[in-house]
Amino acid sequence: MITIHGYSPSGNCHKLRLLLEQLGRPYRWVETDSSRGQTRTPDYLALNPNGKVPMLVREDGAVLVESNAILHYLAEGSSFLPDEPWARAQALSWMFFEQYSHEPCIAVARFICGWTALDSPRRDALPGLRARGHQALAVMERHLSRHPWFTGAYTGVAGDGGFDLAAYPALCDWLARVRATPGFVPMPPPAPEHAALIAASG
Amino acid sequence: MITIHGYSPSGNCHKLRLLLEQLGRPYRWVETDSSRGQTRTPDYLALNPNGKVPMLVREDGAVLVESNAILHYLAEGSSFLPDEPWARAQALSWMFFEQYSHEPCIAVARFICGWTALDSPRRDALPGLRARGHQALAVMERHLSRHPWFTGAYTGVAGDGGFDLAAYPALCDWLARVRATPGFVPMPPPAPEHAALIAASG
Repeated sequence: MITIHGYSPSGNCHKLRLLLEQLGRPYRWVETDSSRGQTRTPDYLALNPNGKVPMLVREDGAVLVESNAILHYLAEGSSFLPDEPWARAQALSWMFFEQYSHEPCIAVARFICGWTALDSPRRDALPGLRARGHQALAVMERHLSRHPWFTGAYTGVAGDGGFDLAAYPALCDWLARVRATPGFVPMPPPAPEHAALIAASG
Repeated sequence: MITIHGYSPSGNCHKLRLLLEQLGRPYRWVETDSSRGQTRTPDYLALNPNGKVPMLVREDGAVLVESNAILHYLAEGSSFLPDEPWARAQALSWMFFEQYSHEPCIAVARFICGWTALDSPRRDALPGLRARGHQALAVMERHLSRHPWFTGAYTGVAGDGGFDLAAYPALCDWLARVRATPGFVPMPPPAPEHAALIAASG
């Protein structure tokens, strides 16, 4: 059986759990709190020198890192990844968009809001992150106004980072379609201390 | 024939030219200077709402964006992309690493050094980008001390962003192996105004 080392409140990790649940594939989950240094221990760095979650470990000990490479690997041969080369290229294109243009703004803004102190200097980055995050959301809204689907992650909890999704109706409809898929599991709500920080981040 | 819209000094674009030359595959190249707004025109945004290079356009007008999705598509069936699922997953893992942990530090530091004024406030980001860039280079060095190859892009011009590669001997050896491959084409040197800024960036 495969093992996933992941931090449940992380969208990069949750999307693996979501796919595994939707595929009905058994897995072991090792909770690894990257916000408390658990990806920076010598044992963890020996397996993943980049010190990040998620990480997949096969029964034979072989390791695969990078959330979207793991998704792609797990989805192979299922209805979640097209076989036809051009369609597969388009799926990968959105997965690279997600990691380059979406996650570094939306997920990082959420992390700063909920996982750093209210006087953290990292909060200075929020206005810039929100401006670039809205650019990414607008690209998604434009696509979803003409197509029903694509892959994505942190969008559903963008509100935690100070993004009001009401301005993106096609995106909200897509999130509803995602939530209605068989096997869908929501991200866990943030722990109370993070929820309080998010509420105070305005 | 396919058309690539690309900015030649961009590593994200150059890596497509490099692969196409190595594959011996014919292509048309439309020079598109993203540093001068040519990816923000209405015509360009109609094809790629994210306003970035590179972009591949097929003869039938179909569009593919995101440099590594394009690389993956072009490499399909060639010796540059493994067929075996686990090996392919590892190649994709490094491609996601490149776009998430490498390019946003190394390429962006190079862009700031060579393509922004010496008094630009964006230069305040250089120390942080260099620290995170060295973390990415160290991950690569560690891998290359035990394996001869992986995929990558901007590393060869990391010096333009203020990264001294002398501390990474396995990485320098790998760059020499890349440069020795059949069909290798180097990135064009920066135009004189950018070379002067790079030299003044210390």
